[in-house]
Amino acid sequence: MVREIVSHDDGAIYEFHPDLEPIATVADGAELTVETRDSLDGAVQAEADVIEAVPEEVNAATGPIAVEGAEPGDVLRVEIEDVRVAEDRGRVITIEGFGLLDGHEDVEAPRTRMTPVDDDGETIRFDGLEVPIDPVIGTIGVAPEPESYTTLVPHDHGGNLDTTDMSAGNVAYFPVFREGAMLAMGDCKAAMADGEMCGTGSEIATEIDVSLEVIDDPAIDLERPLVETPDAWKPIVSAETLEEACELANRDAMGLLSAEHGFDETDAYLFSSLVGGLEISQVVDPLVTVRNAVPKAYLSDPLRG
Amino acid sequence: MVREIVSHDDGAIYEFHPDLEPIATVADGAELTVETRDSLDGAVQAEADVIEAVPEEVNAATGPIAVEGAEPGDVLRVEIEDVRVAEDRGRVITIEGFGLLDGHEDVEAPRTRMTPVDDDGETIRFDGLEVPIDPVIGTIGVAPEPESYTTLVPHDHGGNLDTTDMSAGNVAYFPVFREGAMLAMGDCKAAMADGEMCGTGSEIATEIDVSLEVIDDPAIDLERPLVETPDAWKPIVSAETLEEACELANRDAMGLLSAEHGFDETDAYLFSSLVGGLEISQVVDPLVTVRNAVPKAYLSDPLRG
Repeated sequence: MVREIVSHDDGAIYEFHPDLEPIATVADGAELTVETRDSLDGAVQAEADVIEAVPEEVNAATGPIAVEGAEPGDVLRVEIEDVRVAEDRGRVITIEGFGLLDGHEDVEAPRTRMTPVDDDGETIRFDGLEVPIDPVIGTIGVAPEPESYTTLVPHDHGGNLDTTDMSAGNVAYFPVFREGAMLAMGDCKAAMADGEMCGTGSEIATEIDVSLEVIDDPAIDLERPLVETPDAWKPIVSAETLEEACELANRDAMGLLSAEHGFDETDAYLFSSLVGGLEISQVVDPLVTVRNAVPKAYLSDPLRG
Repeated sequence: MVREIVSHDDGAIYEFHPDLEPIATVADGAELTVETRDSLDGAVQAEADVIEAVPEEVNAATGPIAVEGAEPGDVLRVEIEDVRVAEDRGRVITIEGFGLLDGHEDVEAPRTRMTPVDDDGETIRFDGLEVPIDPVIGTIGVAPEPESYTTLVPHDHGGNLDTTDMSAGNVAYFPVFREGAMLAMGDCKAAMADGEMCGTGSEIATEIDVSLEVIDDPAIDLERPLVETPDAWKPIVSAETLEEACELANRDAMGLLSAEHGFDETDAYLFSSLVGGLEISQVVDPLVTVRNAVPKAYLSDPLRG
């Protein structure tokens, strides 16, 4: 079977909104290669190229891709099979008005550092240091309902989650709010730290292999993104503060544990305090994002019941 | 060499303050076994034993242990060789006025769940579920200067850090603020999630094997605790909010990276956004705690330069 290719040249969005027009319509079960451009639309090719302010359009997300049969109330399963860097350089930057240390006088903004890809394609360079390429999909999500969100914002539809688990070998799940789901993704990084402190990773164009599946009649009412790694199920929550995000992420984990084990809220809370736990995705976007790892030893498949 | 035993029966503190009287004085290089009682001083032995409010004295820390030759400006290196559970049961509890979901009406407080240790000593049980024993030292620190902190509070001297990396196979480093350092530890858990959401792990008595070393003339001016795992060096920061803790933890990581690689602040910031990253220790104590993993691939030994 030849993978269908969906490219940013066919279309990309800068806003997830309820009424998206698809650039491609694919079958439930489709295997795709999604081509993404870098989050800055190619504006930064050398260290002299600095970004003075967060662009109005940023984090182009290739899509939207309509998935046949996806209806509100379903869950879209996105298996991330591979993410390959598709250009010979990434870039990591500061921008005034953005980032964990924004406004500190000893931090220069704007600044650009290029991170060239080494010949073997396995590493990038930062000022002579070798960093393993471990690509992350920064922005991935579906059409929201009822509000719209630019691709700078993470929320219950996904969007700019900047979560290192959005990477090859893992599976992302999104609630379907609108017919066709309208999946879009982009804003990839060759490497990124948990937190994404300066506001970017090594931003780079990629090719992403995914396979899609619509789960109808899911066993839980999925309200927000969930990611499955080899070891854990992790609810992903974006909120105004890390404290608020932690609280919601623990509520989500408790819900999963209760559904599986019949715990009441208090026992789920107590048990959640013993295994896995809270992880930081990013602390820099308009909403911040955390996830909460529930080890698979205690959770089979929450969506299939 | 026979390990010297320091037991909570010899003495334990509920407050780290500048003028502590040691219960033991040991040589630089000492290998000790430190015996700790559970954080609730044995008050909870069955599920009928509930704790109505955070006790005035909690998290008894065995010590203080004076280390010969430790002077202000030095660093105390605490290699955590082994942590063994020393009783047949742990306990995980809710207490009114404490925990991530404190005050939510669907969460019952107080409630106690006992977590008995299985016969093989490898696991505890929570309502029939098996949880691997992976002991964590919840409270560990040295005499602070100039302020005092109860053992419920984490700060730059350590204290109630509730950090899962404070476990066997890792090395903790503390600034020495007072002569003799005055090390104390306790409040151990048989298992704990990152976040410690309900406010406790499986609280349990332990025996802790540590070896101590005074590093005089450290290559960096260590302001706060640091933990070394097999893969990373992690500054540990406690602050009023997670946001503030993340910012300081990134400053600390940037300082380590700059010292090693000669980065200016901005390049250290950019690089910190590519590898390792922020981790949540606990979100429930009077100050919250995060850590920031800098992979050893980019940092040799920050204290020896």
